[in-house]
Amino acid sequence: MVQTDFESVYKEAFPFWNEITEAEREHICSNSVEKIFQKGENIHDSSECSGVILVRSGCLRVYMLSESGKDITLYRLYSGDMCILSASCVLKTITFDVFIDAEEDSSCYLISGPAFMKVSESNPKIKIFSLETAVSRFSDVMWVMQQILFMSMDKRLAIFLLDESSRTNSDIIALTHEQIARYMGSAREVVSRMLKYFASEGFVEVSRKGVKLLDRKGLRELAL
Amino acid sequence: MVQTDFESVYKEAFPFWNEITEAEREHICSNSVEKIFQKGENIHDSSECSGVILVRSGCLRVYMLSESGKDITLYRLYSGDMCILSASCVLKTITFDVFIDAEEDSSCYLISGPAFMKVSESNPKIKIFSLETAVSRFSDVMWVMQQILFMSMDKRLAIFLLDESSRTNSDIIALTHEQIARYMGSAREVVSRMLKYFASEGFVEVSRKGVKLLDRKGLRELAL
Repeated sequence: MVQTDFESVYKEAFPFWNEITEAEREHICSNSVEKIFQKGENIHDSSECSGVILVRSGCLRVYMLSESGKDITLYRLYSGDMCILSASCVLKTITFDVFIDAEEDSSCYLISGPAFMKVSESNPKIKIFSLETAVSRFSDVMWVMQQILFMSMDKRLAIFLLDESSRTNSDIIALTHEQIARYMGSAREVVSRMLKYFASEGFVEVSRKGVKLLDRKGLRELAL
Repeated sequence: MVQTDFESVYKEAFPFWNEITEAEREHICSNSVEKIFQKGENIHDSSECSGVILVRSGCLRVYMLSESGKDITLYRLYSGDMCILSASCVLKTITFDVFIDAEEDSSCYLISGPAFMKVSESNPKIKIFSLETAVSRFSDVMWVMQQILFMSMDKRLAIFLLDESSRTNSDIIALTHEQIARYMGSAREVVSRMLKYFASEGFVEVSRKGVKLLDRKGLRELAL
């Protein structure tokens, strides 16, 4: 069995790595596991403490879920990103629950919550790094909230299509209306209606393959 | 002129107070001012760094504002609460803007952002305290978001009325429908319609004085 070389990865990912003791580094590594998640698999489920997640490859989607099963995407995590909200046992001031799914096949390193917390408690730099990571997620969530509450749907959809296109480096957004609606915290009907309008304006072409961007300039003006 | 005794107040409010040097304490106190705000007065306005606010008495309302002027309450601060989101220069990871108004006549101590940051940079305990304060506001905001996105209006209004009643220790919620709607991030029409329904069910009585709670048990069942 090949031993996973956590150390070389943590060295890059954690700005505090060289400032903690050899024993602390060892403690974190020996309480780490590598996990592979299939696309669509649930990784973290509400209030349990799944530990600190470091994304190696793929994409994780962090979302809220209501009792009725409605969900809304808060943000996504890509290679190199750390998730601290999955380790609610580490930060006591986080009193809410999030859910995390693998949006693509993803490889992650998981550090156990208690092990991370032990080192964090004796080391203010780790604690500050963890809290700063959480606060920057706060900023992400505020942005989502702004979008949902205040922006008109045409603007939000234009931004979503442009973002998704640049992220996947493709003119075609290979998602169903249902999926787009879920990402945007909206309803399928609303997305379909708006896409029909976008198509009628020549901004996009809607087909079974997904949504093809035809007029980026037009979408960008809408997104302003 | 009577010198404000910041020190005796900060000693109670800040858990780190006894762990910083005499010179640091002096630096914070000499960069503090006492300010009185009238009910309705704007205290903090978007991205400027107003400094760290410690509420002595009264009530501050922290909210988001859209371009079109629509606003939504994120949380309120009462006596003893500290506001760090008004000092965006202190926490670099906060990239969003909030607005703060005095909801009642309020007395506050303001510590200048640069002064607080200077002491915070050399002192991990202050930094951790500031970040933890921000993260607990994150928890508040997530709760608001859950309410807005997922809960049905009858449930939200029932919770609001019960909370407000217990906070003010009164059966009468002396707010207009317009004000209630603003607090809840809803529209006046929606609140009026729902209150009419609540009145028809005998839960409340609506008059010019405000909303009187008649059937707490009924409201509590709705709020479940």
